[in-house]
Amino acid sequence: MNKTITGSYTDLYQLTMGQVYFLRGDKDVSATFDYFFRKLPFSGGFAVFAGLETVMEILEDFRFDAQDLSFLKDQGFHPDFLDYLKDFKFSGSVYSALEGEVVFPTEPILRVEASIIEAQIVETMILNLLNFQTLVATKAARMKIEAKDRKLVDFGLRRAQATGGHYASRAAVIGGFEGTSNVRAGRDFGIPVSGTMAHSFIQSYGDELEAFRDFASFHPDNTVLLVDTYDTLKSGVPNAIKVGLEMKARGQSLNGIRLDSGDLAYLSKRARRMLDEAGLHEVEISVSNQLDEHLIKSLLEQGAPIDVFGVGTRLVTGNPDAALDGVYKLSYFKGAPSLKISETIAKVTLPHRKQVLRTYDEQGHFAGADVVCLVDEQDPKMMYHPFDPLKSRSIERVTKEPLLQPVMEDGKRVLPAKSLEEIKKYSKERLELLPGEYKRFFNPHLYKVGLSEDLKNERDRLLKEHKKL
Amino acid sequence: MNKTITGSYTDLYQLTMGQVYFLRGDKDVSATFDYFFRKLPFSGGFAVFAGLETVMEILEDFRFDAQDLSFLKDQGFHPDFLDYLKDFKFSGSVYSALEGEVVFPTEPILRVEASIIEAQIVETMILNLLNFQTLVATKAARMKIEAKDRKLVDFGLRRAQATGGHYASRAAVIGGFEGTSNVRAGRDFGIPVSGTMAHSFIQSYGDELEAFRDFASFHPDNTVLLVDTYDTLKSGVPNAIKVGLEMKARGQSLNGIRLDSGDLAYLSKRARRMLDEAGLHEVEISVSNQLDEHLIKSLLEQGAPIDVFGVGTRLVTGNPDAALDGVYKLSYFKGAPSLKISETIAKVTLPHRKQVLRTYDEQGHFAGADVVCLVDEQDPKMMYHPFDPLKSRSIERVTKEPLLQPVMEDGKRVLPAKSLEEIKKYSKERLELLPGEYKRFFNPHLYKVGLSEDLKNERDRLLKEHKKL
Repeated sequence: MNKTITGSYTDLYQLTMGQVYFLRGDKDVSATFDYFFRKLPFSGGFAVFAGLETVMEILEDFRFDAQDLSFLKDQGFHPDFLDYLKDFKFSGSVYSALEGEVVFPTEPILRVEASIIEAQIVETMILNLLNFQTLVATKAARMKIEAKDRKLVDFGLRRAQATGGHYASRAAVIGGFEGTSNVRAGRDFGIPVSGTMAHSFIQSYGDELEAFRDFASFHPDNTVLLVDTYDTLKSGVPNAIKVGLEMKARGQSLNGIRLDSGDLAYLSKRARRMLDEAGLHEVEISVSNQLDEHLIKSLLEQGAPIDVFGVGTRLVTGNPDAALDGVYKLSYFKGAPSLKISETIAKVTLPHRKQVLRTYDEQGHFAGADVVCLVDEQDPKMMYHPFDPLKSRSIERVTKEPLLQPVMEDGKRVLPAKSLEEIKKYSKERLELLPGEYKRFFNPHLYKVGLSEDLKNERDRLLKEHKKL
Repeated sequence: MNKTITGSYTDLYQLTMGQVYFLRGDKDVSATFDYFFRKLPFSGGFAVFAGLETVMEILEDFRFDAQDLSFLKDQGFHPDFLDYLKDFKFSGSVYSALEGEVVFPTEPILRVEASIIEAQIVETMILNLLNFQTLVATKAARMKIEAKDRKLVDFGLRRAQATGGHYASRAAVIGGFEGTSNVRAGRDFGIPVSGTMAHSFIQSYGDELEAFRDFASFHPDNTVLLVDTYDTLKSGVPNAIKVGLEMKARGQSLNGIRLDSGDLAYLSKRARRMLDEAGLHEVEISVSNQLDEHLIKSLLEQGAPIDVFGVGTRLVTGNPDAALDGVYKLSYFKGAPSLKISETIAKVTLPHRKQVLRTYDEQGHFAGADVVCLVDEQDPKMMYHPFDPLKSRSIERVTKEPLLQPVMEDGKRVLPAKSLEEIKKYSKERLELLPGEYKRFFNPHLYKVGLSEDLKNERDRLLKEHKKL
């Protein structure tokens, strides 16, 4: 899938700006950009950072192909700049939170240090892939928090935003999903694939029992029967029980039944009782149909005996937000700190090459405060509210750990690639360190992101300098 | 981009069902499926059908590659079925509304007639691409209705749902957009690309005037100056005017300025006056920043003198809906009509191979009613409400035109490929035939979709038969 992302996977202005930098002789001038977002998705209390591995893979291989160059030539780009693009290769460095990390608004999550032209050209791709995967991983994690040890499976490809669905399936796993119906994502990312039958299959037989029997005979190891085509409790479940008992008599086992319509709480309870009464305790109940974290929570609060949730549209589109507002801002240029002015202090960007420190409480849990500091700062003592000068606190005796780690140096990966399972495991561990009040859906606690004294002073100094101009 | 969509771009159940059909000897049994949606996006009164050309291109070339087959082998698929997939090629027929057509809920928009296995395997891809492009084309058309002759440009790639953004840029053009910042989409679909500078460019100079001058000197034919980095009216616009006058003195022309923050109505009016007072009447005003159809409407109602709207996130994600609920339902199988039962009559699907007739009023406008009928029905006389038996009307003397046309027959395209510009033009013409009451945002008029007498009788007959079982 990734090979389709070539140099032209960018916004035109990255190239028009690049041409100016190039022609004025600034092609090797270095710049630092921060990736961060301003607003947590889903009115939640946290986000799960995802997409890093995808970005790294693409970044190592990001080239302008012949079609790209010919198109840009037709757009009137300068021959010397086109020559430069012909040999384009990202040779910068990337520092990043690990994929799966729990992250918060305004803190740098990923830092790119490269020539200004390189850093700009890759901006669009980085934003495009991190914004979306972080959105979906966060959505998935919210569902997993409710589903606990029940299985979550992604069924979303048909309603996904075109090929974006490929990356949605990947990000869902990072947030805690166990599988996907999306075969291509299974193939490319090693995600377990699942899925057995649609309503059309049963319709094609006319007779539900015959359809169930036929399916079970051809897929004895992987049979989940869809029981709501005609009448769930009067026809679907009784027929599934018949087939389940027949399979049992043959030494096989019916994996499950799936409910895809109606009152899933009521139907799952009734179906469970019917299955249990027939001795089919091992047959799992899957449900699907417009699920999200709120519906999963509600179903489980009602005691619905559901084993597997199949989640589609609302997962893969990150409904209702549909986008994370991540940005990529210049913070250091030509050896000097840089910031973007705004009329509101909250939107003034943070200058300098920066690090983020996570603080821990005595039990080793996240302490509710991250500190953004200068990259070479030794153990900052105080943490300041980013724009309320009256708010500060000592962080002297608090355990701190840097979030941003070298991922790529001079265009070469220095952090070994991780499997999706490893990333998922890491995310799970990190989410377990996040106290419950940040995970609740209703009015979650606000995780603080403050500034070190040195960073705050630097920002304020640059703001004052700017005002003098 | 399309080559990445191979046979594995499907839901696993299409293949598990396919294996059953194959092993039971039904691989050549033919089936008909309808693509339709149930709910108009954006609480609007119409949708613009998009994605057909993409689907046709992919369908002609839809194959399982070596990696797909090896993955499916590992999933335990039967060797004979894998052999079948190795030679898989879509050899069915497709009948469809033309791309860009104005369409309504419940009516078939596209009909697939193929062997049951082929029809199922391509389902996911068809839904994935049509649902999303129709969503975005509809969103774009809503913006175009308000923007009228002002230019709309897509800036959304960075916030798009990963590679889905590629198709968003395409669909936006069908709905009426003029250009995109997305270089790859420009290259692949022939969309005019635009974009000049970001805030980082001005930041990198420190001095705004110098940044503007430098950009204009390197891009004299394509300069749009971003004026809100420091202070729009005190710094940005005055500096842009200086550069605009300098360009004029050199016989060049400043294309425009762009406002990306603040009160766009107020700022655009002030900026227009300042530009005009400097004699720079030809300099266009572009605006961007979280725009959608409602903001565009509001800005223009306030008399904002805006020439170009740059629209990002809310366009490319189809915000706030993020998905169209399109489905693909079996309607004919083994030479007999098929329908899916549901407890609510509104969700019972329509059996048989069908056609849709659009009715016209005496002025040649859409008459507010489409009729779904049997494919070989000659000029139906009556139209019935789909589930209220008391509602019907005569359509005997009304001009009618079939919407579904042969697009592909026996795996070969019979409708010549159309350029994106042709599709856009067609959509514009069709939208002009739709009366205004269906286009308004607030409480739009409900476009009726009824059934012919023969279709209604067939559905009711099959429903009765089913109840007897």
